[in-house]
Amino acid sequence: MVDASYFKGKDVISMRDYGRKEIDFILNKSTEMIELIGKRCNLCQEKILATLFFEPSTRTRLSFETAMLRLGGTVIGFSDPSASSVKKGETLEDTIKTVENYADIIAIRHPEEDAAKKAADVADIPILNGGSGPGEHPTQALLDLHTIIFAKRKINGLKIGLCGDLLYGRTTHSLALALNHFNVDLYLISPEELSMKKDIRNDLKMNVTETSELLEVLPKLDVLYNTRIQKERFTNPEKYESLKNSYIITPDLIKKGKKELILMHPLPRINEITPDVDKMVNAWYFKQVKHGVYVRMALILLALGL
Amino acid sequence: MVDASYFKGKDVISMRDYGRKEIDFILNKSTEMIELIGKRCNLCQEKILATLFFEPSTRTRLSFETAMLRLGGTVIGFSDPSASSVKKGETLEDTIKTVENYADIIAIRHPEEDAAKKAADVADIPILNGGSGPGEHPTQALLDLHTIIFAKRKINGLKIGLCGDLLYGRTTHSLALALNHFNVDLYLISPEELSMKKDIRNDLKMNVTETSELLEVLPKLDVLYNTRIQKERFTNPEKYESLKNSYIITPDLIKKGKKELILMHPLPRINEITPDVDKMVNAWYFKQVKHGVYVRMALILLALGL
Amino acid sequence: MVDASYFKGKDVISMRDYGRKEIDFILNKSTEMIELIGKRCNLCQEKILATLFFEPSTRTRLSFETAMLRLGGTVIGFSDPSASSVKKGETLEDTIKTVENYADIIAIRHPEEDAAKKAADVADIPILNGGSGPGEHPTQALLDLHTIIFAKRKINGLKIGLCGDLLYGRTTHSLALALNHFNVDLYLISPEELSMKKDIRNDLKMNVTETSELLEVLPKLDVLYNTRIQKERFTNPEKYESLKNSYIITPDLIKKGKKELILMHPLPRINEITPDVDKMVNAWYFKQVKHGVYVRMALILLALGL
Repeated sequence: MVDASYFKGKDVISMRDYGRKEIDFILNKSTEMIELIGKRCNLCQEKILATLFFEPSTRTRLSFETAMLRLGGTVIGFSDPSASSVKKGETLEDTIKTVENYADIIAIRHPEEDAAKKAADVADIPILNGGSGPGEHPTQALLDLHTIIFAKRKINGLKIGLCGDLLYGRTTHSLALALNHFNVDLYLISPEELSMKKDIRNDLKMNVTETSELLEVLPKLDVLYNTRIQKERFTNPEKYESLKNSYIITPDLIKKGKKELILMHPLPRINEITPDVDKMVNAWYFKQVKHGVYVRMALILLALGL
Repeated sequence: MVDASYFKGKDVISMRDYGRKEIDFILNKSTEMIELIGKRCNLCQEKILATLFFEPSTRTRLSFETAMLRLGGTVIGFSDPSASSVKKGETLEDTIKTVENYADIIAIRHPEEDAAKKAADVADIPILNGGSGPGEHPTQALLDLHTIIFAKRKINGLKIGLCGDLLYGRTTHSLALALNHFNVDLYLISPEELSMKKDIRNDLKMNVTETSELLEVLPKLDVLYNTRIQKERFTNPEKYESLKNSYIITPDLIKKGKKELILMHPLPRINEITPDVDKMVNAWYFKQVKHGVYVRMALILLALGL
Repeated sequence: MVDASYFKGKDVISMRDYGRKEIDFILNKSTEMIELIGKRCNLCQEKILATLFFEPSTRTRLSFETAMLRLGGTVIGFSDPSASSVKKGETLEDTIKTVENYADIIAIRHPEEDAAKKAADVADIPILNGGSGPGEHPTQALLDLHTIIFAKRKINGLKIGLCGDLLYGRTTHSLALALNHFNVDLYLISPEELSMKKDIRNDLKMNVTETSELLEVLPKLDVLYNTRIQKERFTNPEKYESLKNSYIITPDLIKKGKKELILMHPLPRINEITPDVDKMVNAWYFKQVKHGVYVRMALILLALGL
C-alpha cells in the first residue's frame, strides 16, 4: 500500500525507481490538480522551487515553474549556465550544495546522463530530474501516461508505438520503462542506427516488436508516440542528415491508422509531424503539455510532503 | 460606445486596430492604475503572464513583468531564445501553442514584423505585442500618448515632431498611427534615407510636414519625440555610421524650442540626447517609463477581462 | 546610537560606509530573520527587487532573490546583459534611471569597480552592491561576519587569515575593511603578486601580518578564509596558470591547524579546497551561503524602512 508519505522528501530521478502502485498514486494525484488551476492556491505559499537548467528548454522549465506558481509558490533559477558560476568552473555538486540553502526543491536539466543522480546524492532537499542528457526524463513519462489515460481511459490492453530516435531520445527511455508496469504491446520503430538504448531494451518485460517500417505496424497501433531525431547528441552531422527525415507524419499517413489512433510527441518537433496534422482529432501533442503541469504540480506537492 | 467587455480576450497587435474611443478607454484605465502602485493588489493573483522575448530588451520586458507583479500576478518566460527550444528548431507557432498551456496572457517581442500577428492567429489566449521587428510597438504608442496627456493635459491642437529613424523605428510607426485619431500637426523629421515607412506614411490622415531639418521646425513644436538610429536593422554598417549622428539634442538646441517643449524618447538612447539635457524640465523620457507600467497594467487587466 | 531609521533609503555600496554600530545593528537584524524562514511572510508583499547582474553569478543573485521572496516580495531583472538594452549601447546610468521606475530596490553586480557607486549616484531608490569588479562586495563581508559569529560566538580576539587572491578578490577587500572595527589579528596570506590591494591595505588599522607561507601561520588561526584565484581579472593567462595552485586546502593541511579552526570560502571554488574537506567539522563554506540569505533579508528590510 502506497500513500503520500512514501513520496515525502524523495527525489524523482528515474522511472526505474517506481512500481505500478507508485505510478498509479502519482497519476491520481495529478488528476486532483486539475481543479486547482485558475483558483487561488496557497499550498506552496512559503516554498521556493529552483529550476537549474544547464541545457536549453522551453517546455520543461516553464512547465515546472508554472506548476509551482499555480500552487502559490515562487521560483528562482537559471536557464543558461553561462550566466552562472558554472562559468567560473564550479562543479554541479557545489552548485547544488549552494542552491539547497535557497530553495525547498530543485528541478534540474543537464547534458550528462548521471547528473540528476549526482545532484540527488549530495542534496538534502528533493531533486526532480527534468532531463539528463541522453538518459531519462521521468516527469515526461508520467505526463505521457496521464495523457494516454485521458485519451483512452486506460493503458492496459493498448498497442503503443514509440517512433524515431530511440537511442538518444530520453523521453522514450523513461516512457518504455514506465510501460513495463502495464499490460501493453510495445512497438519500437526506428532506423537501425537509432534503435532503443540497450540497457533500456534489456529491461523491457512486455511484448515488444522492433521494426524500422512504421507503415507495417501503424494499422495496429492505438498510440503513436513520435520523437525528434536528437541532433544535439550526434557527433557526426552527416549521420544526422541521413536520418533526420526517417519518419514524417502527415494527414495521409494518419488516415492509414485506426480512426481512434492518438498521435503524441514530447515536442519540440522539427519536421516529424507536418503542421496540417495539428487540427486532426488524432493530434494530442499540444494537449500533452497541459498534463505536464498537472503531473509536475503533483510531484512537487508529494516531494514537499504537502 | 466602448466598454471593458470590448477588450476581454482581445490581442494587442497594431495601433491600426484601435479607434479614438478604444484609445481613450485604455488611457483612462491606465490613469486608474496609478493609485494601485505600492498597495497590495490581488486583481491578478491567480494569473500568469508569459514574457517571450526573442530580441534584447530591458525596458519593455521588465515593464510588462512589473505591471503583472503590481497587479498581484506572476511571471514566466525567457529573455534569450538561445536557451529555449527555439534553439532546437521549434517554430514560433509551436512555442505559442505550448506556452498557452502555462500562461493566461503572453507578451512577445520578436525580430520579424508579423510575429505578433502570427502568434495571435494560433493562440487561444491574449497576445500583447511588445515590439515586432521594424513593424509596430503599440503598447509604446499608448504609453507615449499617456505621457503627453500628463505633460500637456491634452493631445488635440499640439504640434508633434517625430525625429530620427522613422524607417526602422517601430515606436514612431505605432505613435503616428495612434495620432491619426487626434487633431494634431505632425512633423516627420529624418534623413531622407530613413523617412517614414511607406505603408505607415500612406495611412496618415492628419496635417503632415516632412523635413530633414530639425532646426527649421523646432520652434513650432510642443512635443519633440526623438529616436535612436536602429543599428540592428541596418545591413550596411557604413550607412549606419553616416546617419547615426543625424540629430543630437543638446541643452542649447532645446533652448531654441518653445519654453514648454517636452522632449520624449522611447529609450535606449545612444548619443541622440546628451546627458546634460536630463535635468532640464523639458526632459520627459525617463518619466515615460513610469507611464509604461500604468498602460501595461491596464492592458493586462482589460485583456484578462478583470 | 544607531536605529533602523538610519538605514532607510540608504544604499549599500562599500564597507567603508559603516562603523561598528551600523555593523552590529545589521548583524542583529540578520539573526532576527532566521525565524522568518519557512513561514508565511508578507513584510515585502507589495515590493519589487530588481537584480541587475552584468557579470555571471549563481550565489549572489539567487541569494538576493531568495531573500526577497522569503520576505513575501517579488523579483524582476536580468542575469545576462547581452539580452538587455546594454547590447544596444545603453549606459549603466540610463538602465538604472529606467529600472527605478519599476522596482523599489536594486541589487547590482558589474565588472567595473565604481559601478555600484555610479548607480547609487543617479538612483532615487536604494542600491545594493552585489559585487563591483575587483572592488568590493559588502553584503558578502556582512554574511562572512555573521557566519563567524555563529561559529565562534564572537569576533573580537580572533586570529583571522585571509588567503589566496587578495589583489582581485573583492570579498577579501570588504571583509578586511569590516574587520577594521573589531579587535582581531589579521593574517594576509597570498603570493606576492596577489598581495592585498593597496588602497585597502593602507586603511587597515588592526594588527596585520603579511606572508606568502600559509603553513607558517596556520597553527595560530581561528578562521581561515580561502579564496579563488580570480581568473577573469587576469590579462595574462600564463600568470594565472603559475598562481592558480598557490594554496590548496586538504584534510591533512586542516589537521595542522587548531582543532576548532573554521574554514571559510566565498565560493565558487575551483581546486582551492579539495572535496574531501567538505565533511570535516571545520568546513563552514556551505553554511556561509545560508547566512547570506539572512543578511540580505535584513539589508532589504532596512533599506526599504520596513
